[in-house]
Amino acid sequence: MPRLKILVAYVGTNYCGWQIQNTLSRRPQPTIQEELERIVERVTGSPIRVFGSGRTDSGVHADGQVAHFDIPEAKLDMDWQRTFNSMLPDDIAVLSVEQVADDFHSRKDATGKAYSYSLWLSKRYTPPRLFPFVWATGPLDVAAMDAAAAHLVGTHDFSSFQNVGTDIETTVRTILGITRTPLGTVPTEDTPMQLTWRFEADGFLKQMVRNLMGTLVACGTGKLSPDDVPALLTACDRTKAPCTAPAQGLSLTQVYY
Amino acid sequence: MPRLKILVAYVGTNYCGWQIQNTLSRRPQPTIQEELERIVERVTGSPIRVFGSGRTDSGVHADGQVAHFDIPEAKLDMDWQRTFNSMLPDDIAVLSVEQVADDFHSRKDATGKAYSYSLWLSKRYTPPRLFPFVWATGPLDVAAMDAAAAHLVGTHDFSSFQNVGTDIETTVRTILGITRTPLGTVPTEDTPMQLTWRFEADGFLKQMVRNLMGTLVACGTGKLSPDDVPALLTACDRTKAPCTAPAQGLSLTQVYY
Repeated sequence: MPRLKILVAYVGTNYCGWQIQNTLSRRPQPTIQEELERIVERVTGSPIRVFGSGRTDSGVHADGQVAHFDIPEAKLDMDWQRTFNSMLPDDIAVLSVEQVADDFHSRKDATGKAYSYSLWLSKRYTPPRLFPFVWATGPLDVAAMDAAAAHLVGTHDFSSFQNVGTDIETTVRTILGITRTPLGTVPTEDTPMQLTWRFEADGFLKQMVRNLMGTLVACGTGKLSPDDVPALLTACDRTKAPCTAPAQGLSLTQVYY
Repeated sequence: MPRLKILVAYVGTNYCGWQIQNTLSRRPQPTIQEELERIVERVTGSPIRVFGSGRTDSGVHADGQVAHFDIPEAKLDMDWQRTFNSMLPDDIAVLSVEQVADDFHSRKDATGKAYSYSLWLSKRYTPPRLFPFVWATGPLDVAAMDAAAAHLVGTHDFSSFQNVGTDIETTVRTILGITRTPLGTVPTEDTPMQLTWRFEADGFLKQMVRNLMGTLVACGTGKLSPDDVPALLTACDRTKAPCTAPAQGLSLTQVYY
């Protein structure tokens, strides 16, 4: 059966994450995977699994999630992008569709990923347009955060930044870069401003970006010193590191193949 | 009684516009004015009118609406911004609060306004983050739209661009500028892209920006020639001009005093 690769964007606010929940209890909210599979089933007449490059947590957004699925030969010529976007809710969109090799796998073939995390540096107000997409932290010492980020780049055991509930072979990952936009100094007074951090790595552990961001913000508020970060890494103990940043600031930006 | 001036931003999607509706029928959605007055009444203990610089239609956004209201002397020292933002829903925010002269009037003292209207130049998909803030038109001839806009700048009778339902002295207004962001040429093929037009004038008639935008888009799709625009102005007849652009692309950006 021919295989399609789709690029998907979503505002995760009203979804229980990417992954279909295998639970007997009533689901409070749908998932992105469910919404996509519902359409593929309606079009093809049979239940077909849509495989994502990885899960995103409840409330996390995506600007470049990748997924793949197989379709009957007879459905190859139809306009899949138009079909998806006419049937999907407004907070999910298929940005592109392409046929790929029959053995392409959105998760197993991924060589790396990029996530973005946005903060709003004021507690006085959050612009309503940005509200669903930022963590409003108040003013931060951004130079301290930059120093902390520099300690995280490279190959490390990130188990201090992994939440429980996964069964994986290794907790070693390589962070290729942590870049902040806009660059430059940030006024230390309460100047309303959005800052975004982009994390690129060969892979991420469960809630790793949100845990890293929690640590960067702890450095920004002075609760932690950037010099403490190397010890956090070597501790390999989640309870030693600061708390997890909220889901709403996070977006899966890109998947590399 | 001391008078406060507030700068307000809102995502208008879930509101029936700015103005409290004087209707006997059940209101389907709240209004922005209602949300603000509810808080002022709760804080002061008495019903106090919050006067806006002007109405915004149902579904229209604001990044810089201005309003004023009077408060009891005893409530002057409290942190009004914090109070508003802790009690308002997430899609409304008070960006600033200042005490003004007792005779300041947000509507009567306004010397001009700026509105922004955003288009998304693809019909293939709309990014979910942008969906509530753009009109997805598909590809457009932006050079034709620029030529049409040039005919609209200046002092004209804009009654061809005014919807019915208002009782005003004159329909003559002066458009100071219509500027497009980003500038430069736009690919004519279906290249996903957001474009924003900023309209500055000494005042606007009812639904004037949405009617002007409807005409610009008609020029962009080739339904109308930019050379037809002067005749539309002199016709002074709403039925001669193209249809009204949807509310969701519009935002009240700035009020000048």
